[in-house]
Amino acid sequence: MSFELYILGSGAAIPTSKRQASAQYVNCNERHILIDCAEGTQQQLRKYGLKLQKIQFILISHLHGDHFFGLPGLLSTMHLLGRNKKLTIFGPVGLEALIGAMLSAGGHPLDFEINFVGLQPNNSELIYQDRFIEIYAFGLKHRIPTIGYRINEKPKLLNLNKQAVESSDLLIEDLPKLKAGISVQRDNKFYNYKDYTLAPLPIYSYAYCSDTKPSNVYLKAIEKVDLLYHEATFTEQHKDRAKKTFHSTAKQAAKQATLAQCSYLLLGHFSSRYENAEVHLKEAKEIHSNVLDSSDGMHIELGNWQAIFGKSDNK
Amino acid sequence: MSFELYILGSGAAIPTSKRQASAQYVNCNERHILIDCAEGTQQQLRKYGLKLQKIQFILISHLHGDHFFGLPGLLSTMHLLGRNKKLTIFGPVGLEALIGAMLSAGGHPLDFEINFVGLQPNNSELIYQDRFIEIYAFGLKHRIPTIGYRINEKPKLLNLNKQAVESSDLLIEDLPKLKAGISVQRDNKFYNYKDYTLAPLPIYSYAYCSDTKPSNVYLKAIEKVDLLYHEATFTEQHKDRAKKTFHSTAKQAAKQATLAQCSYLLLGHFSSRYENAEVHLKEAKEIHSNVLDSSDGMHIELGNWQAIFGKSDNK
Repeated sequence: MSFELYILGSGAAIPTSKRQASAQYVNCNERHILIDCAEGTQQQLRKYGLKLQKIQFILISHLHGDHFFGLPGLLSTMHLLGRNKKLTIFGPVGLEALIGAMLSAGGHPLDFEINFVGLQPNNSELIYQDRFIEIYAFGLKHRIPTIGYRINEKPKLLNLNKQAVESSDLLIEDLPKLKAGISVQRDNKFYNYKDYTLAPLPIYSYAYCSDTKPSNVYLKAIEKVDLLYHEATFTEQHKDRAKKTFHSTAKQAAKQATLAQCSYLLLGHFSSRYENAEVHLKEAKEIHSNVLDSSDGMHIELGNWQAIFGKSDNK
Repeated sequence: MSFELYILGSGAAIPTSKRQASAQYVNCNERHILIDCAEGTQQQLRKYGLKLQKIQFILISHLHGDHFFGLPGLLSTMHLLGRNKKLTIFGPVGLEALIGAMLSAGGHPLDFEINFVGLQPNNSELIYQDRFIEIYAFGLKHRIPTIGYRINEKPKLLNLNKQAVESSDLLIEDLPKLKAGISVQRDNKFYNYKDYTLAPLPIYSYAYCSDTKPSNVYLKAIEKVDLLYHEATFTEQHKDRAKKTFHSTAKQAAKQATLAQCSYLLLGHFSSRYENAEVHLKEAKEIHSNVLDSSDGMHIELGNWQAIFGKSDNK
């Protein structure tokens, strides 16, 4: 059970030979989630060895083409490859009608069920949860209605202290209770769960903010997230352009991460006008100490901070 | 002035690591034409060094996703890169509404004019012509309304016989007439154009048939075309599947090319179930002597048959 992020597209609206437009793949405790789906996302999934039929949830931020034009093709390929497993798609109201029209023009209904959930950008709202994860949606500040997403792992079960358990008279049926933090009474003996368990594995959280200008409205929603992906379309040199187009500079992204006390910051959605993200990174690092620039094909295992950022949070 | 074809996608509905879905780029006497536009076409254009802003005409065959899902993204990128030159798009009725909806969701109109021309598959119909080329549309036989296209070069001007002209008393102003095949009367002397000109450069024609089952309805439209691109989704092994899905086998494509007396045949739209097109090629070659399998990135200069097919038509 791990929490992994794959960057499928780290660029802004115009794809280049190095950067495709926005798409990310998240595997959080075997919940497989695609965030945004630019043109070419199905090809990127294949390129990086990710199985598109595993995807259970698609989260679309907004209806600019570089965030959803790959969706009809992805769904079509899922169908052609024989999918029959349900898919849930969260996105702005209006997405369902657009995708439905594109697919129905082909005259062939999909063989699998899609549960489209239309969202209105708003305060943070729990849109999905199960035993292992929860997903929140929240409003960003862009030119058109835009939604950010946060994925939290739920607290994990305690680990058993095998040595203590084996030298006790506890039965197998008692173990799930202990792992859930429930003490056991058996044969007039009290077994305090604390004596038979160890700390659970740490849990992590990830938030996705693209596209947006920096704003207070979403600070609470991303508060204390372990890893924040924040768009950084521009450098300070093009601050005016960022303001005009409701985008962020890398420095502004870092300020948002600092204000919201996010531990690690991943920058992306870089404009095609930049050869690389060196200046973005430099400007952001002046504000926040744990920053990385994303690139297509990047793979991050949450918690493995030492390897990725060169620093650990000692969770 | 040349007639060049670039294959951007030689595969069928499911893109693979080797074959993208349908798209072709034609430069016919500096008329720049895109035929079909699968998802990822803008990336393919970039990959093969073709300038998307040069495109003046887009011809869409039908509304299955693997033939048009790349159109919204391509148009969007043309806009973002500052296009203001008009673009003409031919395609099935209904295409304009779909693309319009996808683009207008982003809340930003395009900065350039698009002339959408909705077509009904029919007998061969001249849809465009100018001094150098003519484009015909014609109906194919697929599960949904589908259009084939044929691009003809118009007869070229005669070449001047420089030696004969220089040793005559002809004036510069006479030369355009001679090149157009008009004899000249000057100072009581008759200059027969035949004595002062050589044969013009040969002209070529290209037809695109994808997707379709073999049918008589389009044989006349592709008659005696120099190069025919014909879909060959399946091999004979999957003949039944071809019939059921209104597609062609390679052998059927070759029969069509033979019946219509097409000089050269290019196969494509290969199903992703095949590792390569060796069997397609073998089966087609039993019927037609000048056959080639297309591949992504393939570049063909019409007339350069010797280099491509190993045989010349001695035009």
